[in-house]
Amino acid sequence: MFPEFETYIKEQASLSDDDIGLMRAKAIEKTLRRKEVLVHQGDVCRYKIFVTKGLLRAYTTREDGSEHIMHFSPENSWFTDPESFANATPSDYTIDALEHSELILWTKNDLRYLVANIPGLKACFDTLIYKAGTVLRRRIHTAISSTTEEKYEEFIKNHADIHARVPLHMVASYLGVTRETLSRIRRSYVIGK
Amino acid sequence: MFPEFETYIKEQASLSDDDIGLMRAKAIEKTLRRKEVLVHQGDVCRYKIFVTKGLLRAYTTREDGSEHIMHFSPENSWFTDPESFANATPSDYTIDALEHSELILWTKNDLRYLVANIPGLKACFDTLIYKAGTVLRRRIHTAISSTTEEKYEEFIKNHADIHARVPLHMVASYLGVTRETLSRIRRSYVIGK
Repeated sequence: MFPEFETYIKEQASLSDDDIGLMRAKAIEKTLRRKEVLVHQGDVCRYKIFVTKGLLRAYTTREDGSEHIMHFSPENSWFTDPESFANATPSDYTIDALEHSELILWTKNDLRYLVANIPGLKACFDTLIYKAGTVLRRRIHTAISSTTEEKYEEFIKNHADIHARVPLHMVASYLGVTRETLSRIRRSYVIGK
Repeated sequence: MFPEFETYIKEQASLSDDDIGLMRAKAIEKTLRRKEVLVHQGDVCRYKIFVTKGLLRAYTTREDGSEHIMHFSPENSWFTDPESFANATPSDYTIDALEHSELILWTKNDLRYLVANIPGLKACFDTLIYKAGTVLRRRIHTAISSTTEEKYEEFIKNHADIHARVPLHMVASYLGVTRETLSRIRRSYVIGK
């Protein structure tokens, strides 16, 4: 799994071979079967996660049993529950694998050490945090201003890879719309084509 | 205006008198009348803004004329359009004053200089960006998982000060719900009390 990460990080950041060796020394490799859970809602998310293969999902379950997907994390993306990871508080999310997934994990202490000792890594994370903020703001804007049709169109446009890999009810959960409404919209798309 | 900022920043960051002198030297003070616009949608947002007094709003206007409020920024808060500010691209937002407001502005070049030369300021901004991410994630979670009643309750809980200062139709716009639904919910609140 580490070679995939090495390819990724060399494209994203200016790291020396020593830097990469340091990251490798602290890395924990983990494989998840499809449907296997990495973090249960209520547990602490102790890792910063890099997905080298597969697809992770983070979702909350409400008291009425309804599930709400906050995030999909495919190969070559980072993920964690930032609040739980930073403060060692119970996570609001369950994080599980929607496909067979291969991950690299770093603990908070190890990541702090790496960021303190690898200047290029700090710059890389600053850029990723900025980009994540852009995505969050766009998602909020869509949520408060768009029709269900527009939400679905934007999802297909921005997450074509995810759209092709998850069932429609998960897209509905991510968008905060009902499965029935989204099914109706998709049918009209298919008929329209 | 600068004394208010100085009080704020001394609580947030470990800055020397020289650091604060440097920030003062680059600061631009600006007063906005109520309803005055600082940035029009389509213009570049050239400033990082600190509000010492008053209340700013950032909103988008769609082609159908509907307005969608992305953000309220009261006294002792920072604001900018991060994408427009970072990339000098046209802003998606209009930023205006909902009350007589007093602001301190820094240009991108000046802010970059300050962050590079004041380590405590970089740490302070890193913390603010992390906290802003938490707020964005919570807002998304509410948008996709909550009923209109719950959205309104959460707004009152987390933004009691804003709730007391803006008309209900602006709360509806921020939450992405119709004014009529929110009026009905508020009436039931008043009757219930």
